[in-house]
Amino acid sequence: MSVRTPDPNPGWLPDFALDETRARVPILYVEAVPVRVDANGNVEHIGILLRGSSTTGTMTRTLVSGRVLHGEAVRDALLRNLEKDLGPTAFPQLPTSIVPFTVAEYLPFPGVSALHDPRQHAVSLAYVVAVTGECDPRQDALELTWLTPEEAARPDVLADMEGGRGVLLKQALAHVGALR
Amino acid sequence: MSVRTPDPNPGWLPDFALDETRARVPILYVEAVPVRVDANGNVEHIGILLRGSSTTGTMTRTLVSGRVLHGEAVRDALLRNLEKDLGPTAFPQLPTSIVPFTVAEYLPFPGVSALHDPRQHAVSLAYVVAVTGECDPRQDALELTWLTPEEAARPDVLADMEGGRGVLLKQALAHVGALR
Amino acid sequence: MSVRTPDPNPGWLPDFALDETRARVPILYVEAVPVRVDANGNVEHIGILLRGSSTTGTMTRTLVSGRVLHGEAVRDALLRNLEKDLGPTAFPQLPTSIVPFTVAEYLPFPGVSALHDPRQHAVSLAYVVAVTGECDPRQDALELTWLTPEEAARPDVLADMEGGRGVLLKQALAHVGALR
Amino acid sequence: MSVRTPDPNPGWLPDFALDETRARVPILYVEAVPVRVDANGNVEHIGILLRGSSTTGTMTRTLVSGRVLHGEAVRDALLRNLEKDLGPTAFPQLPTSIVPFTVAEYLPFPGVSALHDPRQHAVSLAYVVAVTGECDPRQDALELTWLTPEEAARPDVLADMEGGRGVLLKQALAHVGALR
Repeated sequence: MSVRTPDPNPGWLPDFALDETRARVPILYVEAVPVRVDANGNVEHIGILLRGSSTTGTMTRTLVSGRVLHGEAVRDALLRNLEKDLGPTAFPQLPTSIVPFTVAEYLPFPGVSALHDPRQHAVSLAYVVAVTGECDPRQDALELTWLTPEEAARPDVLADMEGGRGVLLKQALAHVGALR
Repeated sequence: MSVRTPDPNPGWLPDFALDETRARVPILYVEAVPVRVDANGNVEHIGILLRGSSTTGTMTRTLVSGRVLHGEAVRDALLRNLEKDLGPTAFPQLPTSIVPFTVAEYLPFPGVSALHDPRQHAVSLAYVVAVTGECDPRQDALELTWLTPEEAARPDVLADMEGGRGVLLKQALAHVGALR
Repeated sequence: MSVRTPDPNPGWLPDFALDETRARVPILYVEAVPVRVDANGNVEHIGILLRGSSTTGTMTRTLVSGRVLHGEAVRDALLRNLEKDLGPTAFPQLPTSIVPFTVAEYLPFPGVSALHDPRQHAVSLAYVVAVTGECDPRQDALELTWLTPEEAARPDVLADMEGGRGVLLKQALAHVGALR
Repeated sequence: MSVRTPDPNPGWLPDFALDETRARVPILYVEAVPVRVDANGNVEHIGILLRGSSTTGTMTRTLVSGRVLHGEAVRDALLRNLEKDLGPTAFPQLPTSIVPFTVAEYLPFPGVSALHDPRQHAVSLAYVVAVTGECDPRQDALELTWLTPEEAARPDVLADMEGGRGVLLKQALAHVGALR
């Protein structure tokens, strides 16, 4: 008789299962725009990740993002993905409400929507999250750049954002009153 | 050479595929609290569906809800599910923003969270939607009852709501300023 | 014995009293961005008022706006000002929640903030409001122009908005997912 | 020739001017529900102020609140009133967006609305604010009590809230997903 160890991370899926699932249903994501704020909550800097793409060999700018796993609460997914992309000492201040500032819809078909993800139909709950600690990107993110709201809203920065996320970044800036 | 007819409704899944998918990822839903409003937008009545359960033979109260299909926009899913549950002449006034009033998380494990769905881990974007026409529930919903905010907030009504949705109904009432 | 007629509109103030009050406290306003939507709630057109300024003789673009009077509910002020600026047959669909998409702060000192009102410190609760009827601007508004989201976001249109309201218009577009 | 010292706090008004103003226009307030959160942002405790009324000699429960002064930004008013009511070491985490979770309307006429302020027509922008430091109420607030969401939602606690603010507290609990 075999005794199986309980799956330590049951939400993760093998690649074939994830691919199959991606063809069947929209995949739920959380996304975060990390910001530094002053004592009044005014956004002074926005954190943009610089990520190298293994498929295209190019560099793109992006936001903190990741899947919500099976059985995982949205808040847990948000914290886990913030730690994944910003490291364990970022000290994010998670919002008290899980109402996102927007719901971002990524379609796999190019040109249909402003946001695009060739792998899947993804629906992302997007949050602005103040971080107070040191950010140390891990994994495939090479660098975190802190931009002022004015710099982040520059057309060349917005155009560099992966999958059309320049639109999402503008929504985040508008939400915090930092889009001029 | 075989010529395949294009799938007329590619978002739908056969039962076995849906069951398999439900074990792998959280399933994205939209949910709506239909309301009747006065000229100022004050909520006067809330529409609650009375639904017979085929598995338990009991009657439960519930809200408009349904899956977001693969490739389907959240707005399209919301309108489709409003028509599915309220009929084609409800004339819902869809919100101009797709930011939900709350994100409802249903876990398959009883007792873990206020909201519970034995079939799956569901994450639902919840909206309050004013309807101006005649509502004529179809499918398995037997009846639509219009309650005043005071009636809807009664403990016996809230306790009857399927899957713990009494919590969601209270959030909707609070959001529109009708929870006393 | 004198019999006084009840004040028909007690919230209105004589000019001297309003001027005095404007120097003492922030004045509460409501502001609305009128929109036309499709059946799914997608914003197709934004209504911009063209207004002649009696002091400068120039034309400026603006939004629906007006004071909240003493004793007047925010919803009532919103409906009253929509009727004042769009006429009695606009049939606005007032939101079910009075949470604004943003709080706009106008300061009397030029250059301090993006939004500016030389008369006063005004704080404005801003809403996107779908209108379904015929709009017929009254009073000092000469014309209502319906622009697509793309047209409304053009720099020359935004720059023409009175008191820096181009910033507010961009926030409204971002809120409804129509800022590209 | 007299040289006047600039007014150090121009937003403050002498009593007679404030009374006169209160009869003329709605007065803008900010209001905060202080909370303690866990690492995920879940609300664990809600801070309720116990305040002695000088006019009635009774004790009432209330929230952090205060006027927005002439020329003062909403964020500055929020921070100032948090410091006034919770002391200088509360370390509040101000929200990145100034969109309130609700707009609370207090009318001077009893029985007209759920919220009531005998002094004035007040309109209050209400926020949930996480605090991380030590709270040390000053002024007329005698004590700050930390209640769990379950305790805060008890009918006797809600009924004790000044001016009908039990309704506002329930809205705050609903907004953060802590109203069961």
